Amino acid sequence: MLSNTSAVLYGEKDLRIEARPVEDPRPGEVLVEIGAVGICGSDVHYYEHGRIGEYVVERPMVIGHESAGTIVKVGAGVDPMRVGEAVALEPGVPCRKCTQCLAGRYNLCPDVRFFATPPIDGSITHYVTIDEKFAFTAPPSLTLEQAAMAEPVSVGVWAARKAKITPGDRVLITGAGPIGLFSAQVARAFGATQIVLTDINDFRLGVARRLGFSTVNASEAMDGIFDVLLECSGAAPALKNGLRALDRAGRAVLIGMGPDEVSIEVPIVQNRELQVFGVFRYANTYPTALELIASGKVDVDAVITHRFTLEQTEDALTLARRVPDSLKAVVAPGMTVQS
Amino acid sequence: MLSNTSAVLYGEKDLRIEARPVEDPRPGEVLVEIGAVGICGSDVHYYEHGRIGEYVVERPMVIGHESAGTIVKVGAGVDPMRVGEAVALEPGVPCRKCTQCLAGRYNLCPDVRFFATPPIDGSITHYVTIDEKFAFTAPPSLTLEQAAMAEPVSVGVWAARKAKITPGDRVLITGAGPIGLFSAQVARAFGATQIVLTDINDFRLGVARRLGFSTVNASEAMDGIFDVLLECSGAAPALKNGLRALDRAGRAVLIGMGPDEVSIEVPIVQNRELQVFGVFRYANTYPTALELIASGKVDVDAVITHRFTLEQTEDALTLARRVPDSLKAVVAPGMTVQS
Amino acid sequence: MLSNTSAVLYGEKDLRIEARPVEDPRPGEVLVEIGAVGICGSDVHYYEHGRIGEYVVERPMVIGHESAGTIVKVGAGVDPMRVGEAVALEPGVPCRKCTQCLAGRYNLCPDVRFFATPPIDGSITHYVTIDEKFAFTAPPSLTLEQAAMAEPVSVGVWAARKAKITPGDRVLITGAGPIGLFSAQVARAFGATQIVLTDINDFRLGVARRLGFSTVNASEAMDGIFDVLLECSGAAPALKNGLRALDRAGRAVLIGMGPDEVSIEVPIVQNRELQVFGVFRYANTYPTALELIASGKVDVDAVITHRFTLEQTEDALTLARRVPDSLKAVVAPGMTVQS
Amino acid sequence: MLSNTSAVLYGEKDLRIEARPVEDPRPGEVLVEIGAVGICGSDVHYYEHGRIGEYVVERPMVIGHESAGTIVKVGAGVDPMRVGEAVALEPGVPCRKCTQCLAGRYNLCPDVRFFATPPIDGSITHYVTIDEKFAFTAPPSLTLEQAAMAEPVSVGVWAARKAKITPGDRVLITGAGPIGLFSAQVARAFGATQIVLTDINDFRLGVARRLGFSTVNASEAMDGIFDVLLECSGAAPALKNGLRALDRAGRAVLIGMGPDEVSIEVPIVQNRELQVFGVFRYANTYPTALELIASGKVDVDAVITHRFTLEQTEDALTLARRVPDSLKAVVAPGMTVQS
Repeated sequence: MLSNTSAVLYGEKDLRIEARPVEDPRPGEVLVEIGAVGICGSDVHYYEHGRIGEYVVERPMVIGHESAGTIVKVGAGVDPMRVGEAVALEPGVPCRKCTQCLAGRYNLCPDVRFFATPPIDGSITHYVTIDEKFAFTAPPSLTLEQAAMAEPVSVGVWAARKAKITPGDRVLITGAGPIGLFSAQVARAFGATQIVLTDINDFRLGVARRLGFSTVNASEAMDGIFDVLLECSGAAPALKNGLRALDRAGRAVLIGMGPDEVSIEVPIVQNRELQVFGVFRYANTYPTALELIASGKVDVDAVITHRFTLEQTEDALTLARRVPDSLKAVVAPGMTVQS
Repeated sequence: MLSNTSAVLYGEKDLRIEARPVEDPRPGEVLVEIGAVGICGSDVHYYEHGRIGEYVVERPMVIGHESAGTIVKVGAGVDPMRVGEAVALEPGVPCRKCTQCLAGRYNLCPDVRFFATPPIDGSITHYVTIDEKFAFTAPPSLTLEQAAMAEPVSVGVWAARKAKITPGDRVLITGAGPIGLFSAQVARAFGATQIVLTDINDFRLGVARRLGFSTVNASEAMDGIFDVLLECSGAAPALKNGLRALDRAGRAVLIGMGPDEVSIEVPIVQNRELQVFGVFRYANTYPTALELIASGKVDVDAVITHRFTLEQTEDALTLARRVPDSLKAVVAPGMTVQS
Repeated sequence: MLSNTSAVLYGEKDLRIEARPVEDPRPGEVLVEIGAVGICGSDVHYYEHGRIGEYVVERPMVIGHESAGTIVKVGAGVDPMRVGEAVALEPGVPCRKCTQCLAGRYNLCPDVRFFATPPIDGSITHYVTIDEKFAFTAPPSLTLEQAAMAEPVSVGVWAARKAKITPGDRVLITGAGPIGLFSAQVARAFGATQIVLTDINDFRLGVARRLGFSTVNASEAMDGIFDVLLECSGAAPALKNGLRALDRAGRAVLIGMGPDEVSIEVPIVQNRELQVFGVFRYANTYPTALELIASGKVDVDAVITHRFTLEQTEDALTLARRVPDSLKAVVAPGMTVQS
Repeated sequence: MLSNTSAVLYGEKDLRIEARPVEDPRPGEVLVEIGAVGICGSDVHYYEHGRIGEYVVERPMVIGHESAGTIVKVGAGVDPMRVGEAVALEPGVPCRKCTQCLAGRYNLCPDVRFFATPPIDGSITHYVTIDEKFAFTAPPSLTLEQAAMAEPVSVGVWAARKAKITPGDRVLITGAGPIGLFSAQVARAFGATQIVLTDINDFRLGVARRLGFSTVNASEAMDGIFDVLLECSGAAPALKNGLRALDRAGRAVLIGMGPDEVSIEVPIVQNRELQVFGVFRYANTYPTALELIASGKVDVDAVITHRFTLEQTEDALTLARRVPDSLKAVVAPGMTVQS
């Protein structure tokens, strides 16, 4: 029997490394040996607070959802030739039967089962089962670590689609964390040539510049007028200033999570006829995200700053707090502990 | 020479009835004898405060902008057959040369000349000149008073287009003033069958019910879930509760003007992927607005509760404050003073 | 055991009435006792030719797909309270797993199982099983016959959505058969006020006029310019003349089926920037179609001209050829043979 | 007085080099000294046939419309600082008053005055006047020859917008002439990574490959399935085969001009729900086209194969017929005749 050591969250700041059973793939599913899992801000939030809003860790839950791996077994009805295939895992499998699913908005499915959203187990583990349609073939040139980044890159693809970014658009991105840096690269891949990132962290702004973007320290006044705002910071002033920086007919996408209530200047939204889009995860983005990574249009390596073994998952979850000059952390379940 | 008695605003609560010269139509323009002018909330606001935001009444300005009349003279290049034609006047003539104009968003033209927006004179007067393309032929079945309502009905048409209202949509309209009541009827004309209006004024709710709509007193809890919110009240709680009442993928249009800053619940906007649209006036709506009025789909008579002569314009401007159970006031410059 | 007499097509003009087994609803399915089934042009085509394009009746197939009935049994996982519910059946159940399904375009699913499209059995029978999500609750005011019309009405809803019909649009509908008459009513429900139908059959044009529409005999010259063309006839000249009748930026929807190749005038499509949309069935339309029928906005009774028992299905299939002055035929499996 | 030698078309194959008066810029206009004018297929067609469809050269007309130059004088109301500015000229100035103009579709304006469309004079001349809003500031890095290419590049930008090209789209371009080669590069700038060009001319396919695209000789069978077809050849088989190569929900843009009637396979358009867009010139594209050229995303130098003096305009017009291995010809009015 396969061993399945997993990073299990028991509650606030209570992460345990323990063995879990390996599930057998059901019909239409595949069993995937996990190679890499990125750490997302939501993972950190669950670790620190034991909850996100109404989602509470009430019983032990494997953490992690930005993952890629290798198919090692297939369930009934799945092509056995898929065994051995490198795949990026889209972490939310919807019900496919509700109004939202039938309308193509499966990310809004009320019954979606999403990795590491209580009570669904996540993927910092050795083996997971998943619907084969949500295990996307990774281009052969990608490492599993790179393929795992299709998840946060998908956030950027979804935002760029919502904002209908196209050549000629001037794009402002508030927040130069991993999502901001991926979104900026996605915006460039959608054709935007004028892109500015803001943040208060100089390390992050430096990465942005190395990736070829203009930057402004968010503590300073910003010139410029934009067609699109991708708000990736969750900071209330970023949204307020970002909306102010939009041109007439501008579009804003709310990606970052922050305080529950944020004040907006309605006259600005009205007088300029701004369009404000909330986004929740993504839908139908994985093939495009993988293609953008494989083509080099989105450089994920530049954003991954730290790597950990599965046993070091707690270090990965506390990285951002310990090391301000960090960006994306990745856990590699297959790696042995470095001594 | 024609007499041109006008209602001129000199500043906060300083309205004077005085003679103004009659302008001659320039090339491409027509001279219109005004038959009816509706009073808009913005007129009232200019009267009460002498300003709206950055727009300040710094020199005497004729007030009013919801108008219809009869062409009495044409400028060079205009078909002389138009003399005698009943027309509804679209009150904002854009520059037609800027980026916004060329893109079809002429309502966002920074150089638009809009009736009764300082320093541009409005239309509570006997004769105005206007670009002939903004003097829309009124269907013969309409009175000038009805034709004048094409202006506030246009606000509803624009909102319905922004929200892409279509059969099957459940529409919530917060605020049952003239704009709310027109917008509700427009939403019905766009195919919505489930429409609910809210207000705290029972008289207005009663009018809404007589027009065939469901109503809820805004001071009470509201059930129901909607696809579209048309926020017509400008009240902060209306926006907050309205967004809460939207279904996943819902669309909100911000029409009402209220406080400069309003707090919104970002997690609701994100988790449901709401789309929030600011609107500013309207563009390319007049033919449709006139058609909706002429077909009876929008009953404007039910919304007009009070009528005044030009000399009584100040009474019209103070109506809402004096008579809570009122809706739209109309000034008829051609009428003689009732004694 | 329940009896399940069915209308089974064995091939070209070989329709037999014979007993079929009653299937048991699988998990997530319901068993529906069929009350009414409309006859569609495609049913007639299969009867007359034994095929439609690449779809060939190679083994006996129950015919019919515009159906409504009553749930008599539920499969595992379905709310037992649904037994007794009147339902309209959306006849195509997609795979829900492919790219098209996940994108919300489930009508384009290559693996859709659609009633009476070989080799899938249809619904002119006493009992069918179907996924419960495709058995839509009929509003209580509707008869099953009316509810069955949600299928052809859906074709109109889908076309109106593709064409983005909205108040102000002038709509030309070529072909006043059932689909044309339903589409015209749907276009009116979407807000179009100027609607013209063309046909060469005076009976059909008369029905169109009784429903309140303008008509033109297609053999005569037509004046008028339109924003939208809904081509419902499949006749090559109708498409050609219809495109010619479109205004700049006009939209055409190709609904009718006719010859495999049709010539179009490319300069007209280019110089006016026409948009031409092919449509295939519909997606996410049933609730709206049922609402339009229940609200009276789409009068289906006016289009149903003939009714048959299941045993008379062949008469229903030959009706159009025998009786030119006919429109929609409906088969009622539950009715006893009239002697 | 300035000399204004011009290339004037008197009718079929009757081109004369003759002096024309220099016009004075009217209010809002600028006088531009022309530096470069690309030769378009339509110029060649007017030269060869004296007409395009209903547009007939009935009196002498200066030919050419893909132009850039330097502002040498400004009319009233224009900033005098613009003198000396390098500008790309958008060749069609619309009326700005009609329904199409107000809706932002100024390319469909029935009263547009477009260079070298009878009876409007074109720009193969030394000096032209034009509305200053249609003289777009060229980025300083561009030569006038490169800036002139903003016209044909605009055709590609417009097509890409109509087709809503975005990362992940597979794009087929039929016809590797200048428009096809520019459109391919624009499609790449919009994010498409899989782009295939077809043509029957190996020289053109070679240029396409040098620009980094996959190619297929149109005389051979083509594999592959696409999301977008940009039909740039005007050849009937290209359209037919191109539509066949589209995936479900594919979009086709008809750019190339060919025979007046072309047959399309309606069942393919319907069963796959294809969307077919006619395009006519472009609107609101110049800033984006110039930006794409300046950024190097569209390499125009690779497409310009031949250069001529104004006096050699007839050689430029016959180039395509004389030299099959040619692409874009440019006339430089300011150059002296090469001896």
